[in-house]
Amino acid sequence: MRIADRFIKTPASEMIRIFQATEKMDGVLNLGIGEPDFDTEHDIIDAAAAAGKNGFTHYPPTQGYLDVRRAVCDYWKRRHALESTPDEVVLTTGGLQSSYLAMQALLNPGDAVILIEPYFTQYISQVELCGAGLLRVETKEENGFAPLASDLEKIITPSAKILILNSPCNPTGRVISRERMEEIAAIAEKYDLFVLSDEIYESMVHKGKHVSFATIPGMRERTLTMSGMSKSHCMTGWRVGYSIGPVELIKVMTVISATQTFGLNTMAQKASAYALDNHDAKLIERRDIFADRMNYVSGRLNKMKNITCAEAEGAFYLFPNIKKTGLTSKDFVWKMLEESRVATLPGTAFGNSGEGYIRISCTRSMDVLIQSMDKMELFCEKL
Amino acid sequence: MRIADRFIKTPASEMIRIFQATEKMDGVLNLGIGEPDFDTEHDIIDAAAAAGKNGFTHYPPTQGYLDVRRAVCDYWKRRHALESTPDEVVLTTGGLQSSYLAMQALLNPGDAVILIEPYFTQYISQVELCGAGLLRVETKEENGFAPLASDLEKIITPSAKILILNSPCNPTGRVISRERMEEIAAIAEKYDLFVLSDEIYESMVHKGKHVSFATIPGMRERTLTMSGMSKSHCMTGWRVGYSIGPVELIKVMTVISATQTFGLNTMAQKASAYALDNHDAKLIERRDIFADRMNYVSGRLNKMKNITCAEAEGAFYLFPNIKKTGLTSKDFVWKMLEESRVATLPGTAFGNSGEGYIRISCTRSMDVLIQSMDKMELFCEKL
Repeated sequence: MRIADRFIKTPASEMIRIFQATEKMDGVLNLGIGEPDFDTEHDIIDAAAAAGKNGFTHYPPTQGYLDVRRAVCDYWKRRHALESTPDEVVLTTGGLQSSYLAMQALLNPGDAVILIEPYFTQYISQVELCGAGLLRVETKEENGFAPLASDLEKIITPSAKILILNSPCNPTGRVISRERMEEIAAIAEKYDLFVLSDEIYESMVHKGKHVSFATIPGMRERTLTMSGMSKSHCMTGWRVGYSIGPVELIKVMTVISATQTFGLNTMAQKASAYALDNHDAKLIERRDIFADRMNYVSGRLNKMKNITCAEAEGAFYLFPNIKKTGLTSKDFVWKMLEESRVATLPGTAFGNSGEGYIRISCTRSMDVLIQSMDKMELFCEKL
Repeated sequence: MRIADRFIKTPASEMIRIFQATEKMDGVLNLGIGEPDFDTEHDIIDAAAAAGKNGFTHYPPTQGYLDVRRAVCDYWKRRHALESTPDEVVLTTGGLQSSYLAMQALLNPGDAVILIEPYFTQYISQVELCGAGLLRVETKEENGFAPLASDLEKIITPSAKILILNSPCNPTGRVISRERMEEIAAIAEKYDLFVLSDEIYESMVHKGKHVSFATIPGMRERTLTMSGMSKSHCMTGWRVGYSIGPVELIKVMTVISATQTFGLNTMAQKASAYALDNHDAKLIERRDIFADRMNYVSGRLNKMKNITCAEAEGAFYLFPNIKKTGLTSKDFVWKMLEESRVATLPGTAFGNSGEGYIRISCTRSMDVLIQSMDKMELFCEKL
């Protein structure tokens, strides 16, 4: 048996190496994990079981049940003024499958995908699996890690076909402003780009309101809005994502998914419809918990020696600047893990623009966050 | 927005066209559906809900929980003498994802996959998505639709890397004998082929015992055994599959799946472990129900004008010979659907070797099967 050449000797990512080291150490305070610390609410689990006992245990339509897709439309209309119909929605096995199917559906050999640094790591692997090229746009902290139109124009080539946007952003926790989105929209129009807008953190915007990119004038027909139940409804383990976009694309994504995963767990679908319809108040409760935690942590960070951190904007991530410590991101993270038993991720795990930053997930209780910040403060003091 | 060239104008498959026509007609007796008509047992649903309420709602390990993988090993050892360890198992989103991940992990550009006709249709799309070549082996009814060594040697080229086996077979319902498997094993060894052995119908062998291809001497290291919960445990809607094979391959499949679906629904995993550990008696009960139905239907078919049908061997499919009616498979199926309101699938939906046959799924109650056979008998009489 011979593994295909492209998968031979793939080194483990920095993220995986840190997670593995963390598992082997005792007493680590882990601020590396990118998922809510809350379990799924029990009424959502009850909705899943009830659906199963009502006979929803057979093959579902590969696009997803109509009522579930309708719940997605209602949710996005109600919360973000994004108008859509169920035929513009496909359910996917987790948010990741949305972008994977969309890239497969859209990319011809020779096409390229524009990725904004720092980026969510798995997009790189997806672009590679699709055999497409990669155009990276570096961004700067002073621009909120959002690209300027001029940054984009510098790297765009005739092969550019897709632009991936992610606001609120993993790993930076920054939110792209409406003005900046309008600039990006003008570029998408000028260069005929299709936009994959990853809005999985839409429920966690701590300053202002989430802007759904497809609601920017002219963008609806060139945008796939990608999200899912994982972060908003604390359902990471359920693997329910979805995409909203042009019918023609949704149809092809559905056809492709039928050859790979053939539809989504029926009970998880029905539970998602229930959650989308009934849990808006919970989303606000949890958003505010994350905001409180992030405000506490950013406050502490800004008092530490050689550390600065922007205010909480979105998601549950902070991306403090550690440049003045003189250490690289990687050295800082490993040293703090080994000496202080606080796990974070180096900014460079998310592309070169992340050098000089670390990612802190505020997905632990205040108690853990207080202990972690005490330890980090001492660590920075002693450096 | 421009769809990638390879997905433009993909015509709907014959199978999809028949399903769509069936949905629009009233009073159709549908023998086209390839899934058990039984709902999932409620104790399995309870196990899922209990796991969720015990906090299993967070990201699972992408390879699958250790205890679930161990349940897979135990099941295959107990039932089919296939020895394996949990590091040789990866859970997948349905059985289909197993072969898709394996092909991605193994195929270099220029490699080819050997597919035995008649075949399970989705394999074709998967081979195409991987950009690999296809080598088709035609088979004959008199050989039980299993390839002879000489049939395989005729079509093997130096680019052949993977052979897909499927016993019990969808669509023919035929089971490959141990002797024939040993011949195929010798070919796999001689041409250094890796075998993807689709054994999703292992629980439904009606003559003799299921032979797991990896238990043929020398085959363990060149076989991926693929199965899942869908057919054996009536859990099609849960989307739980798994693969058992060489650790090196399992590791790469796990890495690839992390970029596409990122692990399997946690509650479906735990429910599957429960089902694998506790439902062996149910499998026998249902196997015998399918055998009774198939024996009834094949008995009736053999009394019909111009129809012959082999005895029930495996799965819940019969693949009667309709050549003497003078109609093509496609014409026979459409005519019977329109005139008699009995839905089946043409053998040609599964490759050219299927010409002259139709696929009948015995996945309806005896009552429906009796009515269907009465109608089909009249239909054949009048032809």
